[in-house]
Amino acid sequence: MYSDSLNTVPHLTTVLRGPLQHLESHLLQNQAEIEKWFRQQWHIAPAPFYTSVDLRNAGFKLAPVDTNLFPGGFNNLNPAFLPLCIQAVQSAIERINISTTRILIISENHTRNLFYFESILTLRDILQQAGVEVRIGSMQPNLKAPQEIMLPSGYSITLEPLIRIDNYVSVKDFMPCIILLNNDLSDGCPPILENIQQLIMPPLHLGWYTRLKSKHFTHYRQVAQEFSQQLNVDPWLIEPLFKNCGEIDFMKRSGEDCLADNVTALLHDIQKKYTQYQVPYKPFVIIKADSGTYGMGIMTIHDPEEIYHLNRKQRTRMAATKAGQKNTKVIIQEGVYTFETLGEAVAEPVVYMIDHFVVGGFYRVHTERGINENLNAPGMHFEPLAFVDSCITPNQDMEPDACPNRFYAYGVIARLALLAAARELQE
Amino acid sequence: MYSDSLNTVPHLTTVLRGPLQHLESHLLQNQAEIEKWFRQQWHIAPAPFYTSVDLRNAGFKLAPVDTNLFPGGFNNLNPAFLPLCIQAVQSAIERINISTTRILIISENHTRNLFYFESILTLRDILQQAGVEVRIGSMQPNLKAPQEIMLPSGYSITLEPLIRIDNYVSVKDFMPCIILLNNDLSDGCPPILENIQQLIMPPLHLGWYTRLKSKHFTHYRQVAQEFSQQLNVDPWLIEPLFKNCGEIDFMKRSGEDCLADNVTALLHDIQKKYTQYQVPYKPFVIIKADSGTYGMGIMTIHDPEEIYHLNRKQRTRMAATKAGQKNTKVIIQEGVYTFETLGEAVAEPVVYMIDHFVVGGFYRVHTERGINENLNAPGMHFEPLAFVDSCITPNQDMEPDACPNRFYAYGVIARLALLAAARELQE
Repeated sequence: MYSDSLNTVPHLTTVLRGPLQHLESHLLQNQAEIEKWFRQQWHIAPAPFYTSVDLRNAGFKLAPVDTNLFPGGFNNLNPAFLPLCIQAVQSAIERINISTTRILIISENHTRNLFYFESILTLRDILQQAGVEVRIGSMQPNLKAPQEIMLPSGYSITLEPLIRIDNYVSVKDFMPCIILLNNDLSDGCPPILENIQQLIMPPLHLGWYTRLKSKHFTHYRQVAQEFSQQLNVDPWLIEPLFKNCGEIDFMKRSGEDCLADNVTALLHDIQKKYTQYQVPYKPFVIIKADSGTYGMGIMTIHDPEEIYHLNRKQRTRMAATKAGQKNTKVIIQEGVYTFETLGEAVAEPVVYMIDHFVVGGFYRVHTERGINENLNAPGMHFEPLAFVDSCITPNQDMEPDACPNRFYAYGVIARLALLAAARELQE
Repeated sequence: MYSDSLNTVPHLTTVLRGPLQHLESHLLQNQAEIEKWFRQQWHIAPAPFYTSVDLRNAGFKLAPVDTNLFPGGFNNLNPAFLPLCIQAVQSAIERINISTTRILIISENHTRNLFYFESILTLRDILQQAGVEVRIGSMQPNLKAPQEIMLPSGYSITLEPLIRIDNYVSVKDFMPCIILLNNDLSDGCPPILENIQQLIMPPLHLGWYTRLKSKHFTHYRQVAQEFSQQLNVDPWLIEPLFKNCGEIDFMKRSGEDCLADNVTALLHDIQKKYTQYQVPYKPFVIIKADSGTYGMGIMTIHDPEEIYHLNRKQRTRMAATKAGQKNTKVIIQEGVYTFETLGEAVAEPVVYMIDHFVVGGFYRVHTERGINENLNAPGMHFEPLAFVDSCITPNQDMEPDACPNRFYAYGVIARLALLAAARELQE
C-alpha cells in the first residue's frame, strides 16, 4: 500500500484566503449543479483522451496556467489511484470505439530523459490493464530496429520504428486501431502520420507546431465566464488574465514596444483586481512562447521597462523554443502567485485527466524557485509529490478548505481548462 | 491511508488447482479480446445500476452462486476504492440521463439491522460525491415523519416517508429524477411505485416478488457458453450446474419425488465432471428458494435420500422465505466447494459492480461454517474482509494465480453473472 511519507499536503501560506474560501464554499454547495453542467458540456464537446493541467493556488485565486495535451508524468501519480486511470481508459474507449483492441503510443523523440520513459511505461501499463494491447512507436529519425530502453525502475520498454503502408501506420506485426500521440509535434507535422485511416488522438492539429496558448486561453476565458455566471462568482478568481502580441523578434528587438505596452496594460488590470480584493502583493506577468512547451522561452516581468533591458542570454532563451523552432509569438499571462509551500519549497499542483475523468495528480515541489516563477522550467529540479487524494471525494461535512475539498476544487478548475481544450479539439 | 492488517488475502488450500490455473492463464492471455467482448455485450445489454455477485472458488472451478441486484454491504468495501465507485456512478449517470441531479434511494424496511444502514450511508456518500443530491426514502408502513437512525460508525441517516402525487414519487421538498431501489421487493410490488413517471433502477420486475434464480442461471448458462466457446475452455469451470422443479410444498411433502429425482440427476452430472477432472471430493447440491434471498430456505444435500428425511424444523425453514412468503419453487444448484480459507475460517468472495465497472469487493469470512455450506445465512456471523485489490489491475508479468490476477479472474466471472442479469433486465 501507500507509504506514510506521501500523506503530506503542502501548506497554503498566505494572509489572504477569503475570496478563494468563498469560491470553494460555492463549489461545494453547488456540486450537483456543477457536475450536471459538466456532463452536458462533455456531451457537446467530448474531452481529449488525456490532459494534464498546471494550476497555481494564490490563496485569493486558483487558476490554470498551462494545459498539456500530451502529458508525461504518469509515473508521478499515486499508484493507489491507477485503478481510476484504468476505469477512465475503459470509459474512454467505449465512447470512442468499442471494437478497439490495439493502441500504438507514439513517444517523444528525446531518448535521454529516462523519467519520461517511466511515464510511457506507466501509461502503457494503464492501457494494458484496461484490456488493450499496446506497443510503443517512435519517430526518432535514426531508429531502424526495435530499441530496448532500461529504466531506473528496473523495468524496460521497447521503442519500435513506425511503418507506413498505404494509409496505415503500424509497427512490425502490430496494426493498431488507434494511434495515441504522446509526442507534442513541436518539430512540425510528421508526414508519416498525415492522412492515415486510423484514429489519431489527440488529432495532429493540436500539436505544438500549430496550437497556440492564446487560443486555448481565449476558450478558457469563455468557459470561465459561463461557469462563473452560473456560480455567481467573479471569473477573475479562476482565470489568469492575458494578452498577446503579433510578431516579435527577440534577437532583432522588433516588436518590443507592443510587448511593453501590453505588459503595462495587463499589470494595470491585475493591480485593479488586487486593489479590489485588497491583495497586498506586487502584480507580475509571465511572458511565454505562444506555441512553446517545456517551460522554454518563459520569463517573469514586474515592470514593462524590463522588456527594454533584456540581456543577450535572456533574448536567446526567449527566441527559441523546444525543438529549436524560432519563437515569434508570445502570450503575456497574468502571473499567479503560488502560496502553497512544503517546508521552504514552493509547490504547484498538476491535475491529470483521462477523458473527462479526474484521475489524480501531483505537486511539483521546487526548492530553488520563487513564488512568482514558472515551476516547469528546463534543468530546474523538482520533486513530484503525488496527491494523497483522488480529487473526486469532496466532503460537505468538512471545512471548504479541508484536504478532500481543496483537491475537489483543483479537479473542478482543471476540468474547466479541459473543457477549453475540448473546444479547441472541436474547432 | 489503509491499514496493514487489511493486506491479508485468504489462502487457496486445495490439492487440485490445475483446471483453474489453466482458466486464469487463458483469461490473462486473452484480456484484450475479453474486454472487447464485454464492451460489445454492454452495448447490446446495458448493465443494471449496481450488482454484487457471490463467487465460490474451489480451486478446480470458479463460479457465481448468487447475483444480488439490490446490494447491501457497500460499507464493507475497501475505502481506498471509493473513488472507483464515484467514477463508475458518474459514468452510469452519463449513460442513463445526463440531466440527473437528484436521486432517491429506497431502503429496506427492516430498521433494526444497523449494518444495513451503514451500507446505505456509504451508498449515499458515493452518489453525493459523484455530484448528485441524495435523500433516503422508506416504505416502512408505520413511518409518518422523517426518522433519524444513529449508526455504529457515529454518523446518522434520515429515513423519509414516500409521497405519491399523481404519477410522481418524492419525499418532502425533494422531487427525485431517479428512484434507486435498494429494497428487493420480497413483499411484493409496492403500489406506491407502480406506474410512476420517474425512472426506477433496477426496474420493479427485477424484485424478488417476481424474479427467479432459475431464470438468472438460465441466462448465465448461455453467457458461460458463449464466453467459454470464445476462450476455448470447458464452461463447467465457470458455471454451477442446476435444475429446477415445478411446485413443491415442503409442509405437505408434495413434490418430493421430483426433487429427489432432480438431485439424483444433478449429483450424477457433477460426479461425471469430478471424474473427468479427477476431483477427489464428494459432489453435493444446494437447494434454495427460486425467488428467495437472504440465505433463507437453503440447504446442502449430499444424497437424494435426505429429501425424504427432512425433519419438521428443516421443512419449516425451507417452506418460508424472507418476508414470510411461501416458498413453492426451488432451484437445485451444484454445490461449489470453497477452498479459500483464512486461518481456520472459510472465505467466500463477493464482487461489487456499479454499472458494468468492477469497483472492488470483500470476503465473507465464516468461522462456524463448512466448505460446502452456504455462507450467506441468516444469523450466521461473518467478518467482512475488504479486497486489497481493485480487481482491475491484472499483471501479465506475474503468475496467473498471483493476487492481482486472481482478483482479475474474480472480476471477469462476476461480470459474466452481471451480463446474465443485464439480459434479465432486457427481457
